[in-house]
Amino acid sequence: MTVRVGVIGAGMIGQDHIRRLTGAVTGARVSAVTDIDQARAAEVAARVGAGALPTGADLIASPEVDAVLVTSWGPTHAEHVLNAVTAGKPVFCEKPLATTAEDCLRIVEAERAHGRRLVQVGFMRRFDVGYRQMKEVLTSGSIGAPLIVHCAHRNPTVPESYTSVMAAQDTAVHEIDVLRWLLDDEIVSAQVITPRATGKRFAHLKDPQIMLFETANGVRVDLEVFVNCQYGYDIQCETVGEEGLVRLPDPAAVGVRTAGHHESAVPQDWKGRFADAFDAEFREWIAAVATGSEPTGPSAWDGYAATVITDAAVRSLESGGTVVTVDMKPRPALYGGAA
Amino acid sequence: MTVRVGVIGAGMIGQDHIRRLTGAVTGARVSAVTDIDQARAAEVAARVGAGALPTGADLIASPEVDAVLVTSWGPTHAEHVLNAVTAGKPVFCEKPLATTAEDCLRIVEAERAHGRRLVQVGFMRRFDVGYRQMKEVLTSGSIGAPLIVHCAHRNPTVPESYTSVMAAQDTAVHEIDVLRWLLDDEIVSAQVITPRATGKRFAHLKDPQIMLFETANGVRVDLEVFVNCQYGYDIQCETVGEEGLVRLPDPAAVGVRTAGHHESAVPQDWKGRFADAFDAEFREWIAAVATGSEPTGPSAWDGYAATVITDAAVRSLESGGTVVTVDMKPRPALYGGAA
Amino acid sequence: MTVRVGVIGAGMIGQDHIRRLTGAVTGARVSAVTDIDQARAAEVAARVGAGALPTGADLIASPEVDAVLVTSWGPTHAEHVLNAVTAGKPVFCEKPLATTAEDCLRIVEAERAHGRRLVQVGFMRRFDVGYRQMKEVLTSGSIGAPLIVHCAHRNPTVPESYTSVMAAQDTAVHEIDVLRWLLDDEIVSAQVITPRATGKRFAHLKDPQIMLFETANGVRVDLEVFVNCQYGYDIQCETVGEEGLVRLPDPAAVGVRTAGHHESAVPQDWKGRFADAFDAEFREWIAAVATGSEPTGPSAWDGYAATVITDAAVRSLESGGTVVTVDMKPRPALYGGAA
Amino acid sequence: MTVRVGVIGAGMIGQDHIRRLTGAVTGARVSAVTDIDQARAAEVAARVGAGALPTGADLIASPEVDAVLVTSWGPTHAEHVLNAVTAGKPVFCEKPLATTAEDCLRIVEAERAHGRRLVQVGFMRRFDVGYRQMKEVLTSGSIGAPLIVHCAHRNPTVPESYTSVMAAQDTAVHEIDVLRWLLDDEIVSAQVITPRATGKRFAHLKDPQIMLFETANGVRVDLEVFVNCQYGYDIQCETVGEEGLVRLPDPAAVGVRTAGHHESAVPQDWKGRFADAFDAEFREWIAAVATGSEPTGPSAWDGYAATVITDAAVRSLESGGTVVTVDMKPRPALYGGAA
Repeated sequence: MTVRVGVIGAGMIGQDHIRRLTGAVTGARVSAVTDIDQARAAEVAARVGAGALPTGADLIASPEVDAVLVTSWGPTHAEHVLNAVTAGKPVFCEKPLATTAEDCLRIVEAERAHGRRLVQVGFMRRFDVGYRQMKEVLTSGSIGAPLIVHCAHRNPTVPESYTSVMAAQDTAVHEIDVLRWLLDDEIVSAQVITPRATGKRFAHLKDPQIMLFETANGVRVDLEVFVNCQYGYDIQCETVGEEGLVRLPDPAAVGVRTAGHHESAVPQDWKGRFADAFDAEFREWIAAVATGSEPTGPSAWDGYAATVITDAAVRSLESGGTVVTVDMKPRPALYGGAA
Repeated sequence: MTVRVGVIGAGMIGQDHIRRLTGAVTGARVSAVTDIDQARAAEVAARVGAGALPTGADLIASPEVDAVLVTSWGPTHAEHVLNAVTAGKPVFCEKPLATTAEDCLRIVEAERAHGRRLVQVGFMRRFDVGYRQMKEVLTSGSIGAPLIVHCAHRNPTVPESYTSVMAAQDTAVHEIDVLRWLLDDEIVSAQVITPRATGKRFAHLKDPQIMLFETANGVRVDLEVFVNCQYGYDIQCETVGEEGLVRLPDPAAVGVRTAGHHESAVPQDWKGRFADAFDAEFREWIAAVATGSEPTGPSAWDGYAATVITDAAVRSLESGGTVVTVDMKPRPALYGGAA
Repeated sequence: MTVRVGVIGAGMIGQDHIRRLTGAVTGARVSAVTDIDQARAAEVAARVGAGALPTGADLIASPEVDAVLVTSWGPTHAEHVLNAVTAGKPVFCEKPLATTAEDCLRIVEAERAHGRRLVQVGFMRRFDVGYRQMKEVLTSGSIGAPLIVHCAHRNPTVPESYTSVMAAQDTAVHEIDVLRWLLDDEIVSAQVITPRATGKRFAHLKDPQIMLFETANGVRVDLEVFVNCQYGYDIQCETVGEEGLVRLPDPAAVGVRTAGHHESAVPQDWKGRFADAFDAEFREWIAAVATGSEPTGPSAWDGYAATVITDAAVRSLESGGTVVTVDMKPRPALYGGAA
Repeated sequence: MTVRVGVIGAGMIGQDHIRRLTGAVTGARVSAVTDIDQARAAEVAARVGAGALPTGADLIASPEVDAVLVTSWGPTHAEHVLNAVTAGKPVFCEKPLATTAEDCLRIVEAERAHGRRLVQVGFMRRFDVGYRQMKEVLTSGSIGAPLIVHCAHRNPTVPESYTSVMAAQDTAVHEIDVLRWLLDDEIVSAQVITPRATGKRFAHLKDPQIMLFETANGVRVDLEVFVNCQYGYDIQCETVGEEGLVRLPDPAAVGVRTAGHHESAVPQDWKGRFADAFDAEFREWIAAVATGSEPTGPSAWDGYAATVITDAAVRSLESGGTVVTVDMKPRPALYGGAA
């Protein structure tokens, strides 16, 4: 009952996910590949014994494709996901689901028309063991109702192409999704504060940034986004509740004592830090597809919500730090809402 | 060359400091005690072989008193400190230096008139080993220029008499002082955000609160004040710089593994957490007094600054969370400033 | 190029490995199963679409089997492994390779006769991330030549069937293998000391035990084996070298602060603690088989060495704690030796 | 009620303790100093306003001396302590109490003849907060009866004058004392094993050494003594009981993240590591002397026991690692025994 996956977009992330589907996840094989660069599609396809197809539409239509993986350029996501939903095929879309809230809503509407969930969005943190333990603690009630969450998202460096709005759109978006899931709550406002900028950045970039979020239940989140912190890829999250707190662990690493210090290594990139989460993400997605179940991961609605919330953060940044209300539609019943 | 200390105010904190001066600090003895409750003054004085005097003014004037320790009720601080400065005697004043910025300024002016520093204010964190290590790291330059500071100040519970403005005035004031010293920078604005309140508080209290500060150099500080956190007295501080970060350690405590868990105790009050800092504070103060040097601890100016900044935080809280600019006078030359 | 694995022994561990081969490792499928309980073999085989075969010999001979996995009762290991080697098929054998040194040597001889390595023994710790990081540190030279290793191997409890000699044979054998690999050195003597026994054990059992090993290079190892420690499954390892030390991390787990304590969970069994190591072990084995390479994991010689060393530890225990020299044959060239 | 302390021996440790008595401990002053180097005695005495006396006997006899502190050369300890006991004066003797078991016993006999305890021996670990927390955990019963203790005692380097037997006599002696106290148990045998020696030592020295002790209750102790470990002064202790374990914490130190690592400093010498323990040791000793109570710290009997046990360890080392039974007299009633 092997799931035949068609991959749209054979760039770095596409190839990474293909390696994962063929080397770390059982029950799946890559049956088709497409890319705007047809030569690259052909080469990547050949490596895994898949067929190369000219377009995303061809791939989605192919009888050799049971499920679609969208890892193409962000602005093309919406079209491919919509096509897959229309074709009634399960589709895993790397973040963002779409680059505008309107496009996200079109996908949501298409899925509602279809009547059941077909879309999963690639927010992998929900599959990280640490976050899952944190959610268990929150659900257990042992620390009481959550009141505050402190987060940090740090990267060693970013390239010149990384712009100030990407701090929300590409970086903080992971916390935005995982916090909504952790807290089982909705973010209702966003504010972005800009501390003194680090000297170790490209001049056009506001880095670091502090993002403040408020949820419907009144939980307050502060999130440091610092993408040129130099020392490592460091993800921190601490939820403070009425009776205690729970804190994400640092990844396990051997402790070394030499020359007057005790030290342990800090991860250097997200690939290492979240490798197990990526594996689990695809394993669970493939398992759901294989059994014909709805996917258990982030939904099209979650993709929409993340986009609307990052939009609010971007507007706050661009307005010099005002508090911006998140303008979110009512949640449809398909996604557990009342609408 | 024993320093003879006269103590104004023989309540709980006064008695605590008397114990310290007689039991943990060498080179000092308590020679005189006064209190509005004269019987209490007499009793406490007798315990340490000191004389009981009717008023603070008498005590300050006494030839048996080389230095004055003010631990009376906050609203009386200003008068005693002013008297001591006028008398040219070194004076250690528990926080606050005075309850209004105006009174703080009067003390500053009196000290300027005297021509050298006589006043030390009782912010003990500057004497804590962890904060001192943090300052060394900052001064060494190894983490680069500071950009952001994350803090938390948590108490297990507070009594009903604790009001919402005390979160700034009594609690955050410790971070306000230690951050100014750590960063060697001035706080220029304050904002107080109120998350969902914990159910485990008296109904009149806004708890927890998140305070945001900005410094003249653009450093941003977020400080969680949570005085009914239930689990312990927990002080966190992490300074993020251009090339790395430095984090206050948790106090050392034995690790115990039983019944599926590894655990260690969290302190339950500030007395235990900062006991060594209090000892060091008094040891260094007495050493300075004994040699006739200016005190090395927080100055009258620092006491003024703390009051002005907490005033700004209180105004922000009372205005529903607006950003309030700190209205601070220019720093006089006596305190390292240009005025 | 899927590797078709035949599984001899469909008990708990066999089923566990079958789940792994079908659910966590790509490039493999289980094609045949045998067990002394033929009904169980049939049932387990049916679950994964494999054939059930009457005997190990049938399974090894089957053209549907590319590689053999031996997870039957220990005393039967030697026969199956020998048969597989004779048949020229790669064979993964759960520990022990054989229950006697003589049988291990027969396998070694058979493999030498075959001319290349076919056998891998199931010591999974070499595949654990922590031990691998430790080996990297050792190999890097940053802590200098190793001098001492401190280890602990603790289980919450063991059933009544667990006997005193199993502390060496079933428990310490994991450290024995991983230490030989970590240090790239040979163990030459063993001594077993018996502290006061815990009250929380079956009366026939000596628990805990302290095992002392010496290596050819003079490294000294102390290993606490405590299989009724109550609190968890806890594996500790610290290697002290001429210029520093390296210590295995505790598994990452969220930190929780409530009720006066900071705590994190300790694993409760080896399945959770070493789940990733088991996955990596099979992934690398299947990869080697698929490419026709020699296996990279513990060899038949390592299986022999582990047996000879545990024999020495058992003799020390039974003799009341004398130092027992390990009587090991010279290492053949096939396994990197001179013989 | 200031205690007037006479100090015999004005070398490095003597001066250190004088600083402590004058600068960190209240209720005491140094009234007299003697040293074989009379010029040094005079200079040190002058610094603290004490008198310099020609001999230890003079100092003990002086009416200006309430209590005696012996910090002279080890071989002279016995004579001074005996004189003090004979004079009926409280005496604090730096370790060792005496260099031979016989001399220790003479002191014990003298004290018995006197009828109450006058002697305290300078084992400061009993006053360390971490060890005290560990003892509380052991006494509470929460980890059950102790079965095993793992210890390490590491120094960065030692000078050429440090010999192999000093590993027991000068270094391990601290663990020997603190373990007897922690476990409330007696050590009955000792064995010393010599791993491969580090290259970073003087050639005459056996370093590291592993010492194994057994107690009357059957608890087993392994202690790594490594006095040229290069990286720091590192004291480890973990007691394993029937239901859990308790582990000494590392000293608190700020955590720093830079350049791919999280690190914290390791102490570099015992002075820093045990500074607070030394202060507490003298504070409690002076408090006992001031009130005329028996001292609460290590007794003459503990000094004797430490000497007898280190003798056994030395004999084991010199005999090539045999198990040596500790030949200890019955404990007299004065020290809580039955004899």
